[in-house]
Amino acid sequence: MVNINENYLKLKAGYLFPEITKRVNTFLDSNPKNELIKLGIGDVTEPLPEACIKAMMNAVEDMGCRQKFKGYGPEQGYSWLREKIAYHDFQLRGCDIDSSEIFISDGSKCDTGNILDIFGKNNKIAITDPVYPVYVDTNVMSGNTGYINAENRYDDLIYLPIKEENNFVAQIPDIKVDLIYLCFPNNPTGAVATKDYLKSWVDYARFNNSIILFDAAYEAFITDESLPHSIYEIEGAKDCAIEFRSFSKNAGFTGTRCAFTVVPKTLMANTANNSKIKIWDMWNRRQSTKFNGVSYIIQRGAEAVYSEEGKKQVDCLVRFYLENAKIIREQLGTTKLNQVYGGIHSPYIWLKTPGGMSSWEFFDELLQKVNIVGTPGSGFGSSGEGYFRISAFNSRENIEKAMKRIKKYYQI
Amino acid sequence: MVNINENYLKLKAGYLFPEITKRVNTFLDSNPKNELIKLGIGDVTEPLPEACIKAMMNAVEDMGCRQKFKGYGPEQGYSWLREKIAYHDFQLRGCDIDSSEIFISDGSKCDTGNILDIFGKNNKIAITDPVYPVYVDTNVMSGNTGYINAENRYDDLIYLPIKEENNFVAQIPDIKVDLIYLCFPNNPTGAVATKDYLKSWVDYARFNNSIILFDAAYEAFITDESLPHSIYEIEGAKDCAIEFRSFSKNAGFTGTRCAFTVVPKTLMANTANNSKIKIWDMWNRRQSTKFNGVSYIIQRGAEAVYSEEGKKQVDCLVRFYLENAKIIREQLGTTKLNQVYGGIHSPYIWLKTPGGMSSWEFFDELLQKVNIVGTPGSGFGSSGEGYFRISAFNSRENIEKAMKRIKKYYQI
Repeated sequence: MVNINENYLKLKAGYLFPEITKRVNTFLDSNPKNELIKLGIGDVTEPLPEACIKAMMNAVEDMGCRQKFKGYGPEQGYSWLREKIAYHDFQLRGCDIDSSEIFISDGSKCDTGNILDIFGKNNKIAITDPVYPVYVDTNVMSGNTGYINAENRYDDLIYLPIKEENNFVAQIPDIKVDLIYLCFPNNPTGAVATKDYLKSWVDYARFNNSIILFDAAYEAFITDESLPHSIYEIEGAKDCAIEFRSFSKNAGFTGTRCAFTVVPKTLMANTANNSKIKIWDMWNRRQSTKFNGVSYIIQRGAEAVYSEEGKKQVDCLVRFYLENAKIIREQLGTTKLNQVYGGIHSPYIWLKTPGGMSSWEFFDELLQKVNIVGTPGSGFGSSGEGYFRISAFNSRENIEKAMKRIKKYYQI
Repeated sequence: MVNINENYLKLKAGYLFPEITKRVNTFLDSNPKNELIKLGIGDVTEPLPEACIKAMMNAVEDMGCRQKFKGYGPEQGYSWLREKIAYHDFQLRGCDIDSSEIFISDGSKCDTGNILDIFGKNNKIAITDPVYPVYVDTNVMSGNTGYINAENRYDDLIYLPIKEENNFVAQIPDIKVDLIYLCFPNNPTGAVATKDYLKSWVDYARFNNSIILFDAAYEAFITDESLPHSIYEIEGAKDCAIEFRSFSKNAGFTGTRCAFTVVPKTLMANTANNSKIKIWDMWNRRQSTKFNGVSYIIQRGAEAVYSEEGKKQVDCLVRFYLENAKIIREQLGTTKLNQVYGGIHSPYIWLKTPGGMSSWEFFDELLQKVNIVGTPGSGFGSSGEGYFRISAFNSRENIEKAMKRIKKYYQI
């Protein structure tokens, strides 16, 4: 008889986004003509940069021509893409990252999940609360969490609350943890990390031989030049951090699929019998064995992000969403929903629900009375209770329409 | 201190294909002008079907247009692709497979590795020997194999030899195993399975509550209509088998990346406390949590495989490689390398090395004296020792040139 991975049975039944879809569909069944505006899931709406389109057109053409046709590519990604990433995203910002330390993948969701393949059991794992649910669920599946308890938390995870009181950045724990997930600019709160703050994490990790799993999927939204885009801008981070990056939120690749993970060659761990092992070797073996590289066509599209036109067009896209975020922040500020956070270096606005409503109560009210879909903060963790995420990924027209509705319903 | 997955330390150091690359590079360093012909790795060489190119061109255009732009798609794949697969690949062949049972992915290598995520420890796992190395290595990484022993086999795996004596198909074991990997048409031997033979496996699996992991990546090469393309052509297989399919070898998608896995909703397993669980639910949860779907552009390319022109063009591609295989078989038959198998319903020719040479001895001779690269059979497992794989994936010109060289060196 086949044994299954029993850890799957520990997963919470109602995953956040399916629950939202269910409630939205129930509402639409009774109100089929309603013009809902969706500011829930963090999915982009604007077309890909022209430079990426052109590059992918050429790449598709290559695939139809015997001389230029590409079969299996390197599992780690083509060097022409890895080199551009290393140069533009890291070396230009003073980070000593080599192209061989860049692993191209089809998405950060995959990478943040798959990274657990190379780690053992019995690591103490810290996540912030609220947090991107994938970090939690993939740890549950890997058997790292134990069971969920009455507070809706997994027994063996260490939760670092992020709240108004700590300016939405987690305090450095006073106990020793092995793996720490950090995400800046933060999903869902939109909070950012200063260099000093990240340095305190790097110091902590080096002191405790911990590894930081740093998710920088939203780095393109940083508008203040003093803020770090990469954890490798902090000295010593190459000895204690893996960084996840994506083309989803800067170049709009959510449906195109390309991302990358940085694993420095200096990042070491100890084996059970106390010899040193390179994390790079392990991840390289994992990717070579369980992955076959990203489509040539898509990698050419990602490469174009680094061309002169590409950079301008990506910048334009990001500024468009940031302007949406600014409109949301400002308009909400004039209503009863005026306790707003994030949305400055992030496409996400994090707001406190009015009148002490729970996140889901507010979700239902906004859905039914204002016909807007957002994301309940409690879906990201217990400490998200009483908060709500609004995404700036939408057309200007929809953002303005949504704000008009909110201003009417929640006027002071 | 971070614990690593210690199972990685049990992996054999020298993986087959890197070792080949190393020897080839050493040879080329001393013979830089040599015109090596590579018939080693199973990578296609001919351009993509015109229908796929057109479809991807249109899809790239969609991504540049706000109205047609696609963000996140369903993690399981777009229904328009899943439906075409279910209809053309299964329902038309009498298999009762629904589109909801098709999970689109970026490759069979990923799927055959990732599938282990949903299974527990302590399963008895059977593989054939020789075998596609990914099945073995991913089991090592998951901790299912124990250590490698003096016979170059992992202690806890059950090896089912496939040799000349059993016509290169594994005997049904007389002990009970839980998971069985089968691949037909077989990589590396090129052997095929009849319906009767597969039925005996389905009967075995149903009797023992086992699950068959059926790799049908090469089904397009079957030329005899009486042979099954899918395990679901066998009654009862929906209760005991998962099938892996790919667009790599039929439509030449090795560098384009699209595949799919079939998980029937009737496939059940028992949990530790003896309740039933649907394997479909587990795989769906795995894919929704650790995967974000295949690029819209690539899925449109795969869809075109099922158009009228697409089908004709794929057929043409497959017949081209099959004709290569036929040439290889026939020409080798006139030489000292005349013990040849496979190559009829498969792009792979499996040959017995001449004069009792070991697989690697023959590899070196073929490389250095005849300037042809193939794959040593022992790299696929101990029972592959004394055999050698020649791939028909190349241009006609190269195949003919290679055969000329072989006929000269190995003339009788």
